[in-house]
Amino acid sequence: MNIRSVTHIDNVRLSDSGDAVVIIDQSLLPNETVYLNLKEPEELYDAIHELRVRGAPAIGIFAAYAVYVLARRHAALDYDSFYVNFAQDRDYLDSSRPTAVNLHAMLTRMDGVVRAGREKPVPEILECLRDEAIAIHREDMDMCRAISEYGLELVKDGFGVLTHCNAGPLATSRYGTGLGTLFLGAERGMTFHAYCDETRPLLQGARLTTYELQKAGIDCTLICDNMASFVMREGRIDACFVGCDRVAANGDTANKIGTSGVAILAKHYGIPFYVFCPSSTIDFGCKTGADIKIELRAPEEIKEKFFIQPTALPEVKCLNPAFDVTDAELITAIVTEKGICRAPYTESLAALFGGGEA
Amino acid sequence: MNIRSVTHIDNVRLSDSGDAVVIIDQSLLPNETVYLNLKEPEELYDAIHELRVRGAPAIGIFAAYAVYVLARRHAALDYDSFYVNFAQDRDYLDSSRPTAVNLHAMLTRMDGVVRAGREKPVPEILECLRDEAIAIHREDMDMCRAISEYGLELVKDGFGVLTHCNAGPLATSRYGTGLGTLFLGAERGMTFHAYCDETRPLLQGARLTTYELQKAGIDCTLICDNMASFVMREGRIDACFVGCDRVAANGDTANKIGTSGVAILAKHYGIPFYVFCPSSTIDFGCKTGADIKIELRAPEEIKEKFFIQPTALPEVKCLNPAFDVTDAELITAIVTEKGICRAPYTESLAALFGGGEA
Repeated sequence: MNIRSVTHIDNVRLSDSGDAVVIIDQSLLPNETVYLNLKEPEELYDAIHELRVRGAPAIGIFAAYAVYVLARRHAALDYDSFYVNFAQDRDYLDSSRPTAVNLHAMLTRMDGVVRAGREKPVPEILECLRDEAIAIHREDMDMCRAISEYGLELVKDGFGVLTHCNAGPLATSRYGTGLGTLFLGAERGMTFHAYCDETRPLLQGARLTTYELQKAGIDCTLICDNMASFVMREGRIDACFVGCDRVAANGDTANKIGTSGVAILAKHYGIPFYVFCPSSTIDFGCKTGADIKIELRAPEEIKEKFFIQPTALPEVKCLNPAFDVTDAELITAIVTEKGICRAPYTESLAALFGGGEA
Repeated sequence: MNIRSVTHIDNVRLSDSGDAVVIIDQSLLPNETVYLNLKEPEELYDAIHELRVRGAPAIGIFAAYAVYVLARRHAALDYDSFYVNFAQDRDYLDSSRPTAVNLHAMLTRMDGVVRAGREKPVPEILECLRDEAIAIHREDMDMCRAISEYGLELVKDGFGVLTHCNAGPLATSRYGTGLGTLFLGAERGMTFHAYCDETRPLLQGARLTTYELQKAGIDCTLICDNMASFVMREGRIDACFVGCDRVAANGDTANKIGTSGVAILAKHYGIPFYVFCPSSTIDFGCKTGADIKIELRAPEEIKEKFFIQPTALPEVKCLNPAFDVTDAELITAIVTEKGICRAPYTESLAALFGGGEA
């Protein structure tokens, strides 16, 4: 098979001189591709707060680099003063998006590096911080690559793949989770035909997924969410690929609103439905999907955001759930960085990740 | 049961003096409610062409009134001159939207009135034209009411009803087809909870259906198309109501894109799925849905229309089918003005409408 070059989007990286975090401003996509060099505390905070960087893994990587970049400004201090300043920066960044679990987790991991280095000179601690941030980034890339390698076992050259929302490079690093198989396969000369649900109300499929695929030279077609049944009925779809926000111990999966509908259509048409899942999203404390609380968001996202004029009268109510739960029975397989799990998921997930005793 | 007053939208009517057609400008809904008094040929043509009046039955009623209003200008002529002018007006209006079957059919019916009156004085022909236009309007109202009466056999007080696209008063007259049951039931004091799919890409559900329901005081909640599975899973939906564009002899139904997806979800959740169908849309020449050609529309409708900025890169392809086909096996019943048909539809439709021999 021919190897071909695929353009990867560098959504988050440390600048060459190490004094800035470089990101692609996702809030301007797809109409403007703008890279930002962020150095100041307020700039770094705002990047997360204003969704210039988004996607749980990408936010975690960004925060690790950001807290390192800020720590460099305190290089001349003694350890105690350094740590006081570091802790301030850490808390400031952590407050930029309170519900982002990865943000807090990665900042806590960086904090551990500083405290473990309390006997070292501060410049040496800074080196450890840089190395840790790079390690966090590399681990995510490796995880995405491992998921994508397993994903390749599930596709054939020429496959039509339906995607929902965005689980690609912009949300993670390099390959992405749900989309990684398409990028890795393309590097190896495979051809895919992606059909991307636009994913109302926030249009991540239109704005981000088609952007990533188009830039990588992977054939993609944008459809409205309600056209998924049409393309399946026409025989254009061989598999559905989605990411996930949380997987319960029994395999029930919470993901972007609309995912469960895609899974039901796929079952009706006899099309396999695959969830791509970093093991960090498996929550063994959650027995089934019934334990997953669904965030309800503002009506303005449905009626006003992105539109020239409101699409409905001000007094019309909206229901705007951000996620839905796909029953495990609708999922053909859950693809993780450690392997592919199939039903019964309570057993297969526990076997791979030892969560049975949790 | 209490009778209560329900505000009806007068979308098309003849002015009291008979010299103008009065419409609500649907192209400005829901943000502005503007009534137009149309008298001039160009105004009347543009109203259809610019979608100020839309929905096949509503266009037919409008055209009948319009050709009468224009004919009044030729009242002083002898029959032959009158007919030349009438035929010019007829053809001019007919060219405003070439694919609208009802437009052509109703203008042909009005033409028949003129030709049948060739021995009468022109003022008398004008009276016949006015009476015919009013009859066309009344027949549509009666048909909508009959469909809605049958629909009431399928609902109970307090039902949650999912709707897709717009099959209400704006597209027809008074009650509508798919929504008629809700309006008629409300008049009789019944309570419903409507969940309206916004219906991408043209948002008829958001712009028109919620407008009609809200104005009539019927409880309604706007959702994105991809939230239908969520509200069904939550037990909020007792029945799905949709209109139709064409019904094949075997019951396969073409309707607004996304309808087939709703039907598949409804089947999965065990919720009845009803199609409301004026008999004029049953096409016995069409054996199955495979014979129905689906119109593919411009990508701009998906990526640009209604939005402040494009939602995807200019080079991203779109697939934009205007309709899809719902297999007869997914349809719980087809509700017509002559009764309720159930599977097997080839037999039940033919029995009611005698199409078996067509």
